[in-house]
Amino acid sequence: MRLDRSAIERVDRENMLKLLMEFPDQCRDAYRLGLSVELPRGFREARCVVITGMGGSAIGGDLIRCALREAAAVPIIVNRHYRLPSFVDEKTLVVGSSYSGNTEETLEAFDEALKRGAMCMAITSGGELAEMADRAEVPLIKIPQGYPPRAALGYTSIPVLTALVRLGFAPNFDLTGQLEEALKVLEEMAEELNPDVEDNPAKEIALKLHGKLPIIYASQDLEAVAIRWKGQMSENSKSLAYAGILPEMNHNEIEGWRHPEGLLKSLHIVMIRDPEDHERVRMRMEITKGIVRGHADGVTEVYPRGRGELAKLLSLIYLGDFVSLYLAALNGEDPTPVERIGVLKKKLAEGGKWPKSLG
Amino acid sequence: MRLDRSAIERVDRENMLKLLMEFPDQCRDAYRLGLSVELPRGFREARCVVITGMGGSAIGGDLIRCALREAAAVPIIVNRHYRLPSFVDEKTLVVGSSYSGNTEETLEAFDEALKRGAMCMAITSGGELAEMADRAEVPLIKIPQGYPPRAALGYTSIPVLTALVRLGFAPNFDLTGQLEEALKVLEEMAEELNPDVEDNPAKEIALKLHGKLPIIYASQDLEAVAIRWKGQMSENSKSLAYAGILPEMNHNEIEGWRHPEGLLKSLHIVMIRDPEDHERVRMRMEITKGIVRGHADGVTEVYPRGRGELAKLLSLIYLGDFVSLYLAALNGEDPTPVERIGVLKKKLAEGGKWPKSLG
Repeated sequence: MRLDRSAIERVDRENMLKLLMEFPDQCRDAYRLGLSVELPRGFREARCVVITGMGGSAIGGDLIRCALREAAAVPIIVNRHYRLPSFVDEKTLVVGSSYSGNTEETLEAFDEALKRGAMCMAITSGGELAEMADRAEVPLIKIPQGYPPRAALGYTSIPVLTALVRLGFAPNFDLTGQLEEALKVLEEMAEELNPDVEDNPAKEIALKLHGKLPIIYASQDLEAVAIRWKGQMSENSKSLAYAGILPEMNHNEIEGWRHPEGLLKSLHIVMIRDPEDHERVRMRMEITKGIVRGHADGVTEVYPRGRGELAKLLSLIYLGDFVSLYLAALNGEDPTPVERIGVLKKKLAEGGKWPKSLG
Repeated sequence: MRLDRSAIERVDRENMLKLLMEFPDQCRDAYRLGLSVELPRGFREARCVVITGMGGSAIGGDLIRCALREAAAVPIIVNRHYRLPSFVDEKTLVVGSSYSGNTEETLEAFDEALKRGAMCMAITSGGELAEMADRAEVPLIKIPQGYPPRAALGYTSIPVLTALVRLGFAPNFDLTGQLEEALKVLEEMAEELNPDVEDNPAKEIALKLHGKLPIIYASQDLEAVAIRWKGQMSENSKSLAYAGILPEMNHNEIEGWRHPEGLLKSLHIVMIRDPEDHERVRMRMEITKGIVRGHADGVTEVYPRGRGELAKLLSLIYLGDFVSLYLAALNGEDPTPVERIGVLKKKLAEGGKWPKSLG
């Protein structure tokens, strides 16, 4: 399959490609939203930030956590659950993040945060979460409606990142400079990775992954990238994928590359490399590659662009997003509909409205 | 294969089975160690606990984090990296955890914690970490030598859990009662899951997983169990395994159960169920099972014993440990040696001693 524009259009009936091409603009607009939200001075006293959300919204939290890994003055914790961690109290800043505003896990956790008297803010395109924030008179970042949540990653991450930097939680993080670099890199990539470009690394990777189970390995610093690739392959390409993190996988998973014997050749490894990973992690990547290469179908290495954390993270994520689109085409799947997530919601609704406290 | 004692003995040349059978005693002894360590009163003021360690030691941190999920008054963060999170300062309690005492990631992170003036304590059987703790005159929990790190999980978790409870970080956690229940449950299980018992759930599960790629699904509250099963299958059974967490996997991974088509029937799902999981998570488990069952080789459900968090976590972990031993036998692998982790260490050593600051 040639993976040209017509091949994409055949499956991409709701135009995921367009959203992907507009991603740099989305990030620019998202920054503006993060600059304009009013933030109480008291939020600066928070001892910990908890971003509570699921799926496409939670990954925004991971992106923030990884971008600020060298800069955050307080712990930034992503909570993917109905329940809020027990330590959350009035000295914790809780960010409720749900693109639709109707994610039941997020609503329950945010409701609990309000009850505990935590400092609260919300980010959503509307729904119940917007109403809760309005009723409680807490800051609300209102993002545009109409996207599949995973295609709104710029909107679910950059405004909160901007707010956290404005609140002083990352004193040495040059957000303006980092974002400028990231936008430049993303715009270049949109030119290079779109379907009209034949000699295209995203297409090449998708062709390698087609029919294989992708295993994504990244360093701890780039964990958000591995989670995103896995998620986009599941939702866009309708393909399972799994992830492992270095150095941790060197302490257990690497021993697993012996069984089940007949299956390993159906696994294709994507190694997310960063020339600025910790010196020993870079060595570990090389040694790991040598150990597993012969057992797997193959190892494909990918590299970030730019120098700042944000450019690196976003460039690797953007590459993965394109790969997932091409892999969807190879799988004959429309990248946009997520039918089973719909089935889940419908069946859960039969169990009654949730959270009950909001019923 | 009958998986009786002689079948195990054929592969288990370094007697992992013996360590497994002694696990309840290990937990009892570990509690004693946690009670006897002297702890500075100042540690009570910590705003956050960071447990830094890798592999078999890090999973001890996950176990603590999950056990205290409803009780912890401060964030408990497990750090699997050379680098320490940027927020760690003199108000953070850092626990350096390395069974051998020579894990280079842990040594570098612990060295950094000392430099930043964090409150520090160490848990190890010796090595460089013990020397660092002695030199810095910080509390050191000395655990017995001679175990493969993953077989010392009682020693790497319970003393730190005990110390954290003693320091007041989990005011409503009844450690004595929870541990008593857990020990009773583990002793029963040792009777029921050992190779002399023919009608044995651990053997049954191993037989189902043999030749398949295990996918472990658990609720967020039992995340440590999923990580442990995956790790034990890698290290003991020399088999890859992957894990997914609910509710998060309902927001992405569930859509992936369509491709690669030819492969899905080679994946066997283990669902870690808990009758006391969040009401909606229990519903999600049922719906998820219905959606994926027809695509996978099969779904095997396992349940915890006991009522307290500790009994539940440890009983599920203990079951997984036995499963990994039987799966090792089915794979014809000696569960103890971890040859590649040795190769990694040797090759890393060629790159020079690490951390350099300790050279």
